[in-house]
Amino acid sequence: MESQNTNQEKEGVVGRVLALPKVVKEKVLGISRLTKEIAKDDPRKVIHSIKVGLSISMVSLFYYYQPLYENFGLSAMWAVITVVVVFDYTVGATLGQGLNWTVGTFGAAALGFGAHHLASLSGATAEPILIGVFVFMLAAITSFIRFFPKAKARYDYGILIFIVTFSFISVSGFRDNEVLEMVHKRLSTTVIGGSACVMISIFICPVWAGEEFHYSIANKLEILGDYLEAFAHEYFKISKEGEFKDNKGDSTDKSVLEGYKNVLNSKSSDEYLVNFARWEPGHGKFKFRHPWDLYLQIGAISRECAYQMETLNAHLSFDVQGSSKIRCTIQELCLEMSLESSKVLQELGSSIKTMTMSSSSNTHVANAKVVVKSLKSLLQSSSSKEIDLLSLISIMTMTSLLIDIVEFIEKIADLVNDLATITHFHIDDTSKSPKPKSSQSPHYDCAESGNKTNNLQLIILVEESTLAVSESEKSIIV
Amino acid sequence: MESQNTNQEKEGVVGRVLALPKVVKEKVLGISRLTKEIAKDDPRKVIHSIKVGLSISMVSLFYYYQPLYENFGLSAMWAVITVVVVFDYTVGATLGQGLNWTVGTFGAAALGFGAHHLASLSGATAEPILIGVFVFMLAAITSFIRFFPKAKARYDYGILIFIVTFSFISVSGFRDNEVLEMVHKRLSTTVIGGSACVMISIFICPVWAGEEFHYSIANKLEILGDYLEAFAHEYFKISKEGEFKDNKGDSTDKSVLEGYKNVLNSKSSDEYLVNFARWEPGHGKFKFRHPWDLYLQIGAISRECAYQMETLNAHLSFDVQGSSKIRCTIQELCLEMSLESSKVLQELGSSIKTMTMSSSSNTHVANAKVVVKSLKSLLQSSSSKEIDLLSLISIMTMTSLLIDIVEFIEKIADLVNDLATITHFHIDDTSKSPKPKSSQSPHYDCAESGNKTNNLQLIILVEESTLAVSESEKSIIV
Repeated sequence: MESQNTNQEKEGVVGRVLALPKVVKEKVLGISRLTKEIAKDDPRKVIHSIKVGLSISMVSLFYYYQPLYENFGLSAMWAVITVVVVFDYTVGATLGQGLNWTVGTFGAAALGFGAHHLASLSGATAEPILIGVFVFMLAAITSFIRFFPKAKARYDYGILIFIVTFSFISVSGFRDNEVLEMVHKRLSTTVIGGSACVMISIFICPVWAGEEFHYSIANKLEILGDYLEAFAHEYFKISKEGEFKDNKGDSTDKSVLEGYKNVLNSKSSDEYLVNFARWEPGHGKFKFRHPWDLYLQIGAISRECAYQMETLNAHLSFDVQGSSKIRCTIQELCLEMSLESSKVLQELGSSIKTMTMSSSSNTHVANAKVVVKSLKSLLQSSSSKEIDLLSLISIMTMTSLLIDIVEFIEKIADLVNDLATITHFHIDDTSKSPKPKSSQSPHYDCAESGNKTNNLQLIILVEESTLAVSESEKSIIV
Repeated sequence: MESQNTNQEKEGVVGRVLALPKVVKEKVLGISRLTKEIAKDDPRKVIHSIKVGLSISMVSLFYYYQPLYENFGLSAMWAVITVVVVFDYTVGATLGQGLNWTVGTFGAAALGFGAHHLASLSGATAEPILIGVFVFMLAAITSFIRFFPKAKARYDYGILIFIVTFSFISVSGFRDNEVLEMVHKRLSTTVIGGSACVMISIFICPVWAGEEFHYSIANKLEILGDYLEAFAHEYFKISKEGEFKDNKGDSTDKSVLEGYKNVLNSKSSDEYLVNFARWEPGHGKFKFRHPWDLYLQIGAISRECAYQMETLNAHLSFDVQGSSKIRCTIQELCLEMSLESSKVLQELGSSIKTMTMSSSSNTHVANAKVVVKSLKSLLQSSSSKEIDLLSLISIMTMTSLLIDIVEFIEKIADLVNDLATITHFHIDDTSKSPKPKSSQSPHYDCAESGNKTNNLQLIILVEESTLAVSESEKSIIV
């Protein structure tokens, strides 16, 4: 038995060694696939890498040539460090970090020079003690400041370079005039490196954090809208052409049904982008004081929507067999509600993207609210005599979640309207106004329902009352 | 009119100047309040700041003294930079960044030396061109690697220092032996700075990322449990003593009802901590290969729970007036379900914290599942004859959400059981086993319900069937 085990072990080791080239090959293939994906997904990332390479080699060669080297000496290396740390993907991040870096360096240089001077006045024995105390205090205080959430998010690099520069200058064992010269060199190299970054970042294929944030928020709304559309199609088994879909037929693309998951955890990326968007000067359609806070609010409510969708998703697997009359009518209205909501979100997303405002999203909001109203009145007038509550629980939950989503969408629409007013969105009158609801929504056919005519009558009844309310509502809203 | 305007403007300016000391005072007071809060909330943050101050002043003074200075020259400054960048709050982060920093420096030094040697062989004209090409390529490639999400999360500092060191060494205009000496100095100062950080971080009041992660996951479960308890008390207006609560009475502490909001966006902090926990050696109750992935999974499902709670929270404002018989019974069972779930979460949280496993959480899970079963059978046997569907929709949604929460909690309990098996939790037999449900749950009194005796009979009926299932279930589970 033992020899068998040893044999197996040997085979295992040999097998692993033989498999090594394969594993390495797979790793390499995996990395190259990832590289291609990233490059294809956003070619600006490749351009960014080339920009960084360019600025670092520029600054390095500047250091390489002897005349310049003699002027700056080893301090010239600081230009390279500055470029490496400061140069970021977006203009806002580069500007923010550059400003941080410069302010941190200048402040620390001034303080460090003061500390050095004070310590050198106090005599040979007290000098190292005083310097030690200064460095200790400054380092401890600045490390503590890094725990403040706002300071960490905005000024982290500034604080880091502050500590480095301060201890560098206060500790240096030179005489005052030498220290001054060193400070001068240190500051000029920093300024050279920093301004090289900022110039290249702004003037060669700039990537603006504000623009990224703007499109990411618009994308979020479209993703949520697509989800609601896909949900309606999946849940009610209706194909895009509005026909009742066979259960065995191709189901909706699963990736659309999982898109909202990216929205769930988008808070940190929103905050990251807005932090840098605030540093950016006006560019293109965005002014310096663009109302980024409104975008943050839209982002927050779209996350609320995504939470509801996460809950909603649990009800996708619910089966529609054995529908009762009431359930069938509720489903019809839910389908309409989700399709209207989906249209609102998609249109708001595209109107943010293009910065044009069409009135049709408002009409869709009004439509969705009308459906909510008629749904509520339907529910109020019905009681489930023919069906048990357990088989109603899923559809009731779905209804309630969809109603909540409509409320959130109304809030989003209000915020986008505010945004349109403040930033003067172009008003688009040419867009075709939405058709009346009844013809527009794909008709949901309760195939399993026993009494078809009765069911249709009920739907028509509800539709009529709906349209009646719709007219009066529209006159208030428009 | 104009002079009035000018007067007003003057007054405005004067007013602002007069208000300046007040504004500054308020700012200062705000900052000192925040400082006190952070220091009180986690005194280890103060200790960390002192540790950083200590190590930087140690390394600085090491540079200050002439004999050492003569050995290392300006390179000694790298020790300070290393400490500032590498020293982080947790041991894992410090170790990870230290390793990154060291590997990045060594790798870049070797490559840089090679590039320098190669370029110097190629003659005076080709040298700067070759060096420029090398630096450009390395810088562009490494900048692109920073877009890989995994590389960014784990090796960002390593990549940064790689570019800096590489261009520093390949560019330097010295002869080969001088470069070798410089590389030697650079590496020794880095190692000195890095090991100072790691030593101080591990041996003086260490803060372990793994421990932080462990407790943060346990805390999350407790927060969610507290929420469910508070939800039950708030929704069913029952005080902690199990009595029906007056609407005007003190409501549950609002902060508990909003605690779950911190769980919603905890994904990034979870991933941040687990990244560093993986670098840490065994410490205390945690071995080197502690199953951190299980914690990540528990964290993910607790976020799912939090999403449900966010949806649930919308139903808090629902009023309990005019309850019907069915609704009253459903509410009774929902109350039990949420209290049992809350107990499961609280116990799982505390059993992770203390790393002891008591069987009572399993019993509570079984109880919650029994309540779900009896709730489902109650719903199956009921239809709403006396009440319209609209007034049922909120309670039905709540029921459905609570049922979903029970499912998630079951998954969490399974994961915690796995964790307990793998990491050998201490088994606690002394804990009092939970009392039978009927006496334990605060009795929900449907004060407004018309027919009290009928209602009670129904509850007792359900309770009996519940207990019957409970016994058989327990025998399977235990």
